[in-house]
Amino acid sequence: MGRVTSRRRVVRIVEGVAAEPIDTLAAEEPLEIRVNGRPLVVTMRTPGGDFDLAAGFLVSEGVVRRGQDIAGIRYCAGATADGANTYNVVDVVLAAGVAPPDPSLERNFYTTSSCGLCGKASLDAVRTVAAWSVGDDPIRIDPAVVSSLPGTLRAAQRVFDRTGGLHAAGLFSAEGRLRCLREDVGRHNAVDKVVGWALRGSRVPLRDSILMVSGRASFELVQKAVMAGIPALAAVSAPSSLAADLAEDAGLTLIGFLRGASMNVYAGAHRLASGLAERTQTKTEI
Amino acid sequence: MGRVTSRRRVVRIVEGVAAEPIDTLAAEEPLEIRVNGRPLVVTMRTPGGDFDLAAGFLVSEGVVRRGQDIAGIRYCAGATADGANTYNVVDVVLAAGVAPPDPSLERNFYTTSSCGLCGKASLDAVRTVAAWSVGDDPIRIDPAVVSSLPGTLRAAQRVFDRTGGLHAAGLFSAEGRLRCLREDVGRHNAVDKVVGWALRGSRVPLRDSILMVSGRASFELVQKAVMAGIPALAAVSAPSSLAADLAEDAGLTLIGFLRGASMNVYAGAHRLASGLAERTQTKTEI
Repeated sequence: MGRVTSRRRVVRIVEGVAAEPIDTLAAEEPLEIRVNGRPLVVTMRTPGGDFDLAAGFLVSEGVVRRGQDIAGIRYCAGATADGANTYNVVDVVLAAGVAPPDPSLERNFYTTSSCGLCGKASLDAVRTVAAWSVGDDPIRIDPAVVSSLPGTLRAAQRVFDRTGGLHAAGLFSAEGRLRCLREDVGRHNAVDKVVGWALRGSRVPLRDSILMVSGRASFELVQKAVMAGIPALAAVSAPSSLAADLAEDAGLTLIGFLRGASMNVYAGAHRLASGLAERTQTKTEI
Repeated sequence: MGRVTSRRRVVRIVEGVAAEPIDTLAAEEPLEIRVNGRPLVVTMRTPGGDFDLAAGFLVSEGVVRRGQDIAGIRYCAGATADGANTYNVVDVVLAAGVAPPDPSLERNFYTTSSCGLCGKASLDAVRTVAAWSVGDDPIRIDPAVVSSLPGTLRAAQRVFDRTGGLHAAGLFSAEGRLRCLREDVGRHNAVDKVVGWALRGSRVPLRDSILMVSGRASFELVQKAVMAGIPALAAVSAPSSLAADLAEDAGLTLIGFLRGASMNVYAGAHRLASGLAERTQTKTEI
């Protein structure tokens, strides 16, 4: 795309002394996603993989489930003063019979009209909308494979190496083979791009796969994994309480603080059990 | 609040050996923000500082500008089956004469109905909506003070020390004194909480102050700083291209990669100039 990074002169200060080198920044631009011509949402994203992002976003929101639910995706021709196409507006045309998102709903599908909004209601919403059951996915995962994921992801993150400013999401096989890597200034966008790539290749539900993300694991990321039928999510850093609750509720294996040969498994630990040399029952505080 | 963290038994795997310690997780729950009784948005946040979060969100969106624009904020009484208050829905009552947000607008105020959506249009939107001009704020900043901010922020981050899962935003004086620290699973929420705290104390516009955030600096965070009248934003990691563009456009000082005595200044470097021992004009690549 040529728009994934941009170069900029900066003032670099080290120990009170300034220089003016050129720095490479991760690009960020708005993307408007339309469905059947109707604006749905604007997200700030790193350009590139926009059709994947739009498709993956619609999977996360429960609008589409399989590749055939989308008839086509296109960039809207420009309506700027000079008629240029900004490549920042995409329209997703749904297949016949697929219901467009209800325009009266908020962007978050766990919005409620009552005061009963709570974590449990959010879990219920995912359970109601999810098309796939990840809990019965028979995938088994070797902890040694899990430990290899961050290194594989990082080695493939060429853009990150230049800017230091992009989140990454990688889809792996149970054997640790990287199937798809996407980067974005937004962690949720990187995941949507991976899921959208899979959907457009008719690979959803993504059984027998592990999603690995840089950074932390929020409720939203676990939700996206569940909606795409991914049975395992690994993150470099901490999950939130609700992310762990949702993983438990949905039967997803959630791994956090994945660093070297150590990791915390917050839910679905049975999938890693056979790879453990020894299972001690020490119950200590950390 | 007692809901900022939660404890959970996890399976901890080190070198293929498992134990089952208790881990402390950052809490995450949905918060619905209503304005004059009408639902506006649902955000996933760490409970605590909810009134600040709601107020700061409305500053970011351009709905309110000063403390007196808000007549009151309250939790909605529960409408759950057992009538309990979930403390996850807040209603902001605007002062007489303050226009509520247009319900026809998307959550992002830079949404456009044309195909002309682009980075520049996003900058224009902020320029149009912003109530304060940060470019003419006369604050001058010593790079040595900037270097002290991450340490001060981290030392005050007691919750972070327990969970490793929370983003922090801190508001500092030009002399590096911490005025307000807020933490949240969402970086944008942490900033909204700081801004809302300031608004409710009639401290907006936040002239003569520096906002420091853990992690990266996105367009959205620069936007929030500009909307609150904050003239300087410092981040531990990288900014995006559009974050730097907006900072340049608005006259905000944007500092990234703040580590020890080194930092990159992406915009508004004049505010740090007097503190530099020597200003070399080396133009090298980094």
